[in-house]
Amino acid sequence: MHEFSSEQWLDDIKWTDDGLVPAIAQDEKTDRILMFAWMNRESLMLTVKENHAVYWSRSRKKLWRKGESSGHQQKIKSIRIDCDRDVILLTVEQVGGIACHTGRVSCFYQQLENNQWVAVEPPVKDPKEIYG
Amino acid sequence: MHEFSSEQWLDDIKWTDDGLVPAIAQDEKTDRILMFAWMNRESLMLTVKENHAVYWSRSRKKLWRKGESSGHQQKIKSIRIDCDRDVILLTVEQVGGIACHTGRVSCFYQQLENNQWVAVEPPVKDPKEIYG
Repeated sequence: MHEFSSEQWLDDIKWTDDGLVPAIAQDEKTDRILMFAWMNRESLMLTVKENHAVYWSRSRKKLWRKGESSGHQQKIKSIRIDCDRDVILLTVEQVGGIACHTGRVSCFYQQLENNQWVAVEPPVKDPKEIYG
Repeated sequence: MHEFSSEQWLDDIKWTDDGLVPAIAQDEKTDRILMFAWMNRESLMLTVKENHAVYWSRSRKKLWRKGESSGHQQKIKSIRIDCDRDVILLTVEQVGGIACHTGRVSCFYQQLENNQWVAVEPPVKDPKEIYG
């Protein structure tokens, strides 16, 4: 993995002071935004190497292989970067069709309506079934 | 604006220590991810009030009314928030069909190919024409 970690495309990224980069996951088929998370250098390397999304959990301070407990992995279809090279966009095949820990397709299920955040989509599956 | 700034939906957001929240802009018609930027409380308030995207420029440390110099405003179609309430997703009507300062539709025009970031989309318009 050593030669891999010294690759130019990783150096090209404008990492935060904490060594992170924000990553957006978009469903390749439906074009829906599924989730937003953070990556560090190692997690992005592993994402490419394993061809499945690996994030960095800031709360748990550890690598987070998406789907490791739910089975809802994200198979990588493409990896893009923005003009400033400080944001990553993944297009993915979302295994199980569920990205959110609440059992919904997408983490973005609350919409602003009359100055309130309203859940506009029900869970596809009870989280207890996913994580139970 | 005072009563507006004390509204609950703004308090519901999990702002960073710097008082910011990341915002993703998605084209309402094409579903493409156009750009990623940051908002503070005032910029999000103004986004709702003016119904056009207003971001917070971290580099210039000022409000940034998207399109103020290019004319490429983003008319708001919906505002969503994720399960953790720390990321905003805007669906927008992109005026002029160009979100990126390089003259491209989207800021995400570089794709990882054979361990290199490759520009896979040409500009729609020369930036000199946009900002000249």
